[in-house]
Amino acid sequence: MYSQGMEIVAEEEKRIKRVLFQGMRGAYSEQACREMLSGGIFEFEPAKTFEDLFDGIAEGRADLGMIPVENSMAGVVSDSYDLMAVHHLHIVGEYYLHVRHALLGVRESSLAHIHNVSSHPQALAQCRNFIRSRGWNQRSVYDTAGAAAELAEANSPEGAAIASELCSELYDLKILERDVQDSDLNTTRFVVISREFQTPPESSDMCKTSLLFEVRNIPAALYKCLGGFATNGINLTRLESRPVQGRHWAYHFYLDFEGHVEEKRAQQTLEELSFFTTNLKILGCYLKADRPM
Amino acid sequence: MYSQGMEIVAEEEKRIKRVLFQGMRGAYSEQACREMLSGGIFEFEPAKTFEDLFDGIAEGRADLGMIPVENSMAGVVSDSYDLMAVHHLHIVGEYYLHVRHALLGVRESSLAHIHNVSSHPQALAQCRNFIRSRGWNQRSVYDTAGAAAELAEANSPEGAAIASELCSELYDLKILERDVQDSDLNTTRFVVISREFQTPPESSDMCKTSLLFEVRNIPAALYKCLGGFATNGINLTRLESRPVQGRHWAYHFYLDFEGHVEEKRAQQTLEELSFFTTNLKILGCYLKADRPM
Repeated sequence: MYSQGMEIVAEEEKRIKRVLFQGMRGAYSEQACREMLSGGIFEFEPAKTFEDLFDGIAEGRADLGMIPVENSMAGVVSDSYDLMAVHHLHIVGEYYLHVRHALLGVRESSLAHIHNVSSHPQALAQCRNFIRSRGWNQRSVYDTAGAAAELAEANSPEGAAIASELCSELYDLKILERDVQDSDLNTTRFVVISREFQTPPESSDMCKTSLLFEVRNIPAALYKCLGGFATNGINLTRLESRPVQGRHWAYHFYLDFEGHVEEKRAQQTLEELSFFTTNLKILGCYLKADRPM
Repeated sequence: MYSQGMEIVAEEEKRIKRVLFQGMRGAYSEQACREMLSGGIFEFEPAKTFEDLFDGIAEGRADLGMIPVENSMAGVVSDSYDLMAVHHLHIVGEYYLHVRHALLGVRESSLAHIHNVSSHPQALAQCRNFIRSRGWNQRSVYDTAGAAAELAEANSPEGAAIASELCSELYDLKILERDVQDSDLNTTRFVVISREFQTPPESSDMCKTSLLFEVRNIPAALYKCLGGFATNGINLTRLESRPVQGRHWAYHFYLDFEGHVEEKRAQQTLEELSFFTTNLKILGCYLKADRPM
């Protein structure tokens, strides 16, 4: 199942690249690493928090980070967005992970034994119909892989965890049922971050560029910001506002558009955008990934 | 501290209005109810989840709901936004709560005894410097009031909870220290929801109107949506995109603007907006509240 990976930017050096993901071993972020970063030149290390992950890359203890930025059902992953604004790191790739939840139990367990199920509240919510139809008790824990690890430790045949299939290997648990999510329309967009700003060749087939900016305090500011994209025929794929940390009710905007940052129409748009914004920052330019389905 | 409340829309009938808030007794949502809805004609009841809250109002078991929609540091409260889209409820008021965290301990405790502190992860993050300077262990729990209730039950002099001051009254805990948040720039915007659509008189000094819509699949759609506001001189206070539940990578937008929905320029803007949107819905028109600071 990890063979569908695409390769990130070509590497000159052959040394192993360290990639950090947030969460415990078996987190969906590790699954995304394994699917996207194939080829045996990467190793994946957990970071306890998003802050640890960003610090690890900024301080050179790791080369890349795999961070979730948006889920098709739950929306923006705010912690990772906010850290992009305060660290000088760059986006060098993106990946869409189809999130598939598995029901895991201990070795001696079976579906008929289960009375309790634990997972992250969002995963429980995504399997609501499945859980309700069985009448099990639910328990919210801090992350899906943590639910699997706790279950393995407790070794309870009555308990189950909802987590990635990868957790069954890592924590020696049994897959009681695959694909227990109510809807298959559950995809998380990840971006790969790096200390270095590097872009694909301008001739690349399809790129995306990510920006961060604040709008000036002028009438109809956001409308004016979007004008250059409209007149240059550039397609926006995302516009997200987030509070600026440390300032009260101030916002900045994350904007993704289709195109290479060095294309002429992109350069014209950025020049126009700069009239209506402050702190305009190009977060990255990278190959566009396929969205499942 | 509850005397600063403003009164919601005038009530013809004198019967007590039931108001639901999400969370346990002592949640910041209950604090918002007590501050905003004074006058003795309201009673406040906890709802376990946002879904229970919306269902309770839709099915007539309660009159109003107090729901957080945005925090000045953490951004949008996505669960409550998503339920607005699927329920036919209306916004009839708004309130800004200045979030002040207190450190609570059991009666026999004192600051010198504390080794562990528990709260919701966001509250812990908002008191990071305070906690780090003391070197305490942190434990994440599902909500701030839950941390207070658990502490009272465990009756441990070594434990503390970070929660609202209101929790000290409700769970018989002692306030070990007030205002333990690192930054005072922490405000949550709440809206009051109701089954009935009711607007203030058009002559009211300052109103806000909230909309929900999807943009049509045409080039530069969002830009075109904002054009009517720009040309009519209407000030946007919020634009937030959220995934449409049950559809893959489809978004709708929540937009708040300053003005009464029945004003001529608002009517013109809505007419123009309708050309570029689908499922345009007026969520409510209500008196604008003051933002602290």
